[in-house]
Amino acid sequence: MRKIRIGILGYGNLGKGVEVGISQNKDMELVGVFTRRNPDTINTLKEDTKVYHIDKAGKMTDIIDVMVLCGGSRSDIMTQGPEFAAMFNTVDGFDTHAKIPEYFEAVNKAALNAKKTCIVSSGWDPGLFSINRLYGEVFLPEGKGYTFWGKGVSQGHSDAIRRVEGIQDARQYTIPIEEALNRVRSGEMPELTARQKHLRECFVVAKEGADLKKIEDEIKNMPDYFRDYDTIVHFISQEELDRDHGRLPHGGIVIHSGKTGLHHENTHVVEYSIKLDSNPDFTANVLLAYARAAYRLNREGSYGAKTVFDVAPAYLSAKSGEELRRTLL
Amino acid sequence: MRKIRIGILGYGNLGKGVEVGISQNKDMELVGVFTRRNPDTINTLKEDTKVYHIDKAGKMTDIIDVMVLCGGSRSDIMTQGPEFAAMFNTVDGFDTHAKIPEYFEAVNKAALNAKKTCIVSSGWDPGLFSINRLYGEVFLPEGKGYTFWGKGVSQGHSDAIRRVEGIQDARQYTIPIEEALNRVRSGEMPELTARQKHLRECFVVAKEGADLKKIEDEIKNMPDYFRDYDTIVHFISQEELDRDHGRLPHGGIVIHSGKTGLHHENTHVVEYSIKLDSNPDFTANVLLAYARAAYRLNREGSYGAKTVFDVAPAYLSAKSGEELRRTLL
Repeated sequence: MRKIRIGILGYGNLGKGVEVGISQNKDMELVGVFTRRNPDTINTLKEDTKVYHIDKAGKMTDIIDVMVLCGGSRSDIMTQGPEFAAMFNTVDGFDTHAKIPEYFEAVNKAALNAKKTCIVSSGWDPGLFSINRLYGEVFLPEGKGYTFWGKGVSQGHSDAIRRVEGIQDARQYTIPIEEALNRVRSGEMPELTARQKHLRECFVVAKEGADLKKIEDEIKNMPDYFRDYDTIVHFISQEELDRDHGRLPHGGIVIHSGKTGLHHENTHVVEYSIKLDSNPDFTANVLLAYARAAYRLNREGSYGAKTVFDVAPAYLSAKSGEELRRTLL
Repeated sequence: MRKIRIGILGYGNLGKGVEVGISQNKDMELVGVFTRRNPDTINTLKEDTKVYHIDKAGKMTDIIDVMVLCGGSRSDIMTQGPEFAAMFNTVDGFDTHAKIPEYFEAVNKAALNAKKTCIVSSGWDPGLFSINRLYGEVFLPEGKGYTFWGKGVSQGHSDAIRRVEGIQDARQYTIPIEEALNRVRSGEMPELTARQKHLRECFVVAKEGADLKKIEDEIKNMPDYFRDYDTIVHFISQEELDRDHGRLPHGGIVIHSGKTGLHHENTHVVEYSIKLDSNPDFTANVLLAYARAAYRLNREGSYGAKTVFDVAPAYLSAKSGEELRRTLL
């Protein structure tokens, strides 16, 4: 059988994860990386990876089955999504929650028009965590769901800190609070504030001569990002940051508990958790499984934008239905 | 919108769970319970539940959208599945793993012929655990998956003990071994024997004058069920069994760990776990969500036998795609 031919749009951490992840999937091959930068300046992780300028993509629609969009949600995917949906089956990890409905509609229109299949907002959250929130709700309708993130590096929060005056570099860890986790796991179904669920720990490199007290206050009082949380700020050197905080671990937990029985006498707790050494690597692997699904759905004539909610598990696997039933059911 | 009209075939613990579970789902209503026993002898949990003899079912195909098969896999479902697939959309929790392919084919043939949609082997294992085994494998192809069961009552093992001569009643708990769990959670990917993964604890009521030593030996050496495990046998009175072991708690854990990165330098661990006060209640709720999916798939003209692998998450929910994207993605 012919392999699924994958293109990578954008070559940051996620694009690198997809590049390496493809070799874990025997039914896929990489056509190349597409970038806005000068292709000659890109050093790929694998020697034989081809790099093209993004302007070349439009002429390669015949030899790419699925394009994996690896840019940022804010700057890149919002516009690239609909644009590439008019040319390719696509998969992306668009994660600006508030804009998902609008983005979905734009991609859907372009994809339907071009008879392409585009899976948006895949990855682990949105993505696998969303599926588990849905499963929780449908299997335990009289219950309550919780999502915890971490312990891990939040890139959005790290970026927010770096915009504070006097800061040279920074890394922010989101940490679920054990007491809250234990209450949720007990089936108690507590109401929890943002502050009760997560702690925020920041490692900050200040510029020379900066006012540390002022920086710390500014971080802790930043609306949306930090004001509603207990936040710890550590000042460290650039060397320490590079040495001790150079990786991108992450993780999280979705818990749903609920009651059954004529008198609600039975409590059930369902928990889904992930612990990742590398957030972009795992996200890349999830996108690749959904790339397989996009390819297969497209061949079946199922066009338009989809989310992880619309994809049956079997489409993610290279195994046949018969083999899945025999080996995994 | 008209509610989904559910029939229940078989009124044991699972059937009772479905009866009560329907009232947690606003888009469903119960038509009635079907039984081989004399309907007049059945006391239902809810006063207004109607009870019919199984022979009446064939005349009620017009007023039942989905029949939930709640009999035992061995004795009932193997034959009832194909028989009812010729008349109704169905959902079942058929769990005799070795016979699933054969059962699937028989149901598929009957369902395709009658333009019905039948979801077989749903529940939590097979079912939700199967989905998580598949997810583990596709997201971390260079990895290893593990399934642990318990702590909880295994009805199959309890039944096996009760067949031993000199035993009046018994209850068997399957218990995952903490050390094995911790090794798997560390990402080590160990090879584990049956004995290393689970402990079996039995509470046995012996008949008067029975040879306890002989009973204990017979249990511990029972092939398939106990010989490959460390097994603890406690002899207790019927009163103690009824008082302390009358419920049907269960649970389990699916863990998949794997490596990514150019040099396999990153480890990831994904864990799905459930903790249930009542195994039949939770199983019933899962079957009901898949009943909703069977109904909707049938209306879309998607006929034949399906498993949980073939059902996209959205079909399990009463919410629209738009609402799911807005609230859960």
